Order: sequence, then structure tokens, then C-alpha cells
Amino acid sequence: MKKSLGARTLAFPTPVWLVGTYNAGGTPNIMTAAWAGIVCSQPPCVGVSLRKATYTYGSLMLKKAFTINVPGAAHVQEADYCGIASGKAGNKFTAAGLTPVKSDLVDAPYVQEFPLVLECKIIHTLEIGLHTLFVGEILDVKAEEGVLGEKGLPDIEKVKPIIFGPEIRTYHGIGPYLGQAFAIGRKP
Amino acid sequence: MKKSLGARTLAFPTPVWLVGTYNAGGTPNIMTAAWAGIVCSQPPCVGVSLRKATYTYGSLMLKKAFTINVPGAAHVQEADYCGIASGKAGNKFTAAGLTPVKSDLVDAPYVQEFPLVLECKIIHTLEIGLHTLFVGEILDVKAEEGVLGEKGLPDIEKVKPIIFGPEIRTYHGIGPYLGQAFAIGRKP
Repeated sequence: MKKSLGARTLAFPTPVWLVGTYNAGGTPNIMTAAWAGIVCSQPPCVGVSLRKATYTYGSLMLKKAFTINVPGAAHVQEADYCGIASGKAGNKFTAAGLTPVKSDLVDAPYVQEFPLVLECKIIHTLEIGLHTLFVGEILDVKAEEGVLGEKGLPDIEKVKPIIFGPEIRTYHGIGPYLGQAFAIGRKP
Repeated sequence: MKKSLGARTLAFPTPVWLVGTYNAGGTPNIMTAAWAGIVCSQPPCVGVSLRKATYTYGSLMLKKAFTINVPGAAHVQEADYCGIASGKAGNKFTAAGLTPVKSDLVDAPYVQEFPLVLECKIIHTLEIGLHTLFVGEILDVKAEEGVLGEKGLPDIEKVKPIIFGPEIRTYHGIGPYLGQAFAIGRKP
């Protein structure tokens, strides 16, 4: 029996990704976002939604570029911190003990310590309501060599991405392997 | 040291959600999507991107409504099947052994067997490239009573959502609790 819980942003899983930007003065900033996901295969694009009130919003509008930085479970505290503090108040990279690396491809910094990063240029914005959706074309994906597995692709069990549960406000790690996609559902 | 992997849709985690629709004749259909996520808090909205070639695309354009159905790990095979087969070829609910329930709120069916469902009306579409992004306002969230935990909200460890790894094409379950959001990152 299903119970009605009302109109709310409640769906599992959502990601924990840090959006990297430079402000007008060139100071690097990162903010944590969970309203995000892949939105197109060709061109490869990621979408991330932010409130206008965030410090990052202004930098996105100005620079038309961002990075998506995927923290491993070892950085869950830093990820949470970067969702609480604002770049208005100071340099969050410094406060979180993280190292900004200037992207060669877009005018945005990525996080040296994180296993997986995407460099993106903004190709669309969509005003939805409280949040604005930024669609970024993925120009490159970079991964730490230590997390690479079969076929030279990142192994999700080595990346150890963080899962966010909206409304319940919990972080979880990646769990057991359940099967191969586009394979286990094939009828005999 | 980071290695460049090229421009590709490679980020972890992505969700495994099934999009429920009715076609022009009223036949229920479901398709599995991973290019999806929450996109706005107010109004609460979810975004899902589909190719024009999918059967669901036509139903979304016609009905302006859909459901998001979150399968638990026990239904990973059915979820994979609904990402392989097309509704053009037959009723996927029947083939997957799943039961469509007509939503009271929108002209779309949800999956009785899944623990968490969202009923959505389309308020925006955005053509990106191969994929079109559909933004649906979440009119209600419904959960099985058996997965509810503290404060009457779904417990993610009971819902057991599936995580998809793009490019590596693997499904994983939800892993260990890592901490409370907006809490563990606070400085003392």
C-alpha cells in the first residue's frame, strides 16, 4: 500500500558533486550540488541546478564554464562543508584543504584530490523556479590513474562516489555489484 | 595524476528510474532512464532526458505527464529489461511482470511493485541534442509504507535504489551510511 507524502523533491539516488568556478577576480570556488545529472549523450552534457542566491550562480553567468568534481567517500566531510559554507565568506578550497587546478579547456578550476572530474562549457540555461538549470557540454573527463579499471575506464568501486538522500539528508557509499546493464534484463 | 578520458557521459552516480507513460491509445508503458535528476526545489521538479527515437518520447509530448518509478535492488532485472525493450513491440509492463496503477493526479501510470514513485506534469522541454530534457513538476510522491522510516520519510536502506555507472554499464546497490548532510561538514 502506497502512502502519499506530498509534493517534494524526494527521489533516490541523487549525486554529490562539487561545482568548480572562478569568480570575477579569478578566485576559485566550489559548491556542492545534488540537483544534477547527465542530460544528453550527443553532445555529452551534464546539468546542474542552482539557486540565484548562491555565489556560484554569478560566476557561472560570467564565465560560462564549470567543472563537476566527484568526491570519493573519504572526502564526505569536505563535500558537506562545501554545501554549507558560501564562497562569499572566503576561499572554500583553502578552508576545505583542497587544491584548485586550472583547467586547460575551460575557465574553471577542478579539485586535484578528487578521483573524477568533468570540464564543461555552458551551452544552455533554463529558468525553472527557485533553481536555474545550467547545461554544460562535457569537453573532457579526467580520472586519477589509481581508480581506472577495465578498458581504462573508472571503476565505480574505486571511485567510491557519494549518494545523497534528499529530505532524509543522509550520505551513503556505493554498495554491492548487482549486474551488468543492457545484459541482465535480456530474456533467454 | 589525472588521465584524460575524452568527452563522454561519465559521472557517478546516476539513477535508475523508470518513466511511466500512457500512449495515445491508453496503453501503459515504462522505460528505464539514467539521464535524470532533481532540477528544482520550488516548484519541486524532476528532469529526465530521452531520445526522440524512444516510444516514450511521443507519449510525453502527447500527455504532458509522466511518473518516475524508483525500483529497489530486487527489481534490477526488470529495470534492465525496460531499458532494452521498446514499448513499440508490446506491453512492457506485462512482459516484465509489473502492474500499472493509474495516477489520480496525472495522465500516467505508476509501478505498483516499486517502493517509491513520483507523479509529474511537464512544465518545460529543452532540446539539447540527441536528447530532449523534460522537466516535470512533482505533484506527489508516494512510498510503500514498508519502506518508511524516521519522520515518516522513506529510508534509503529500505528503498534500496539502484545506482548506474555510465560507460562501465554496471548496476550497484546502496552502500554504507557515511553521515548526516548539512551536519558532518560543520567546523567545530
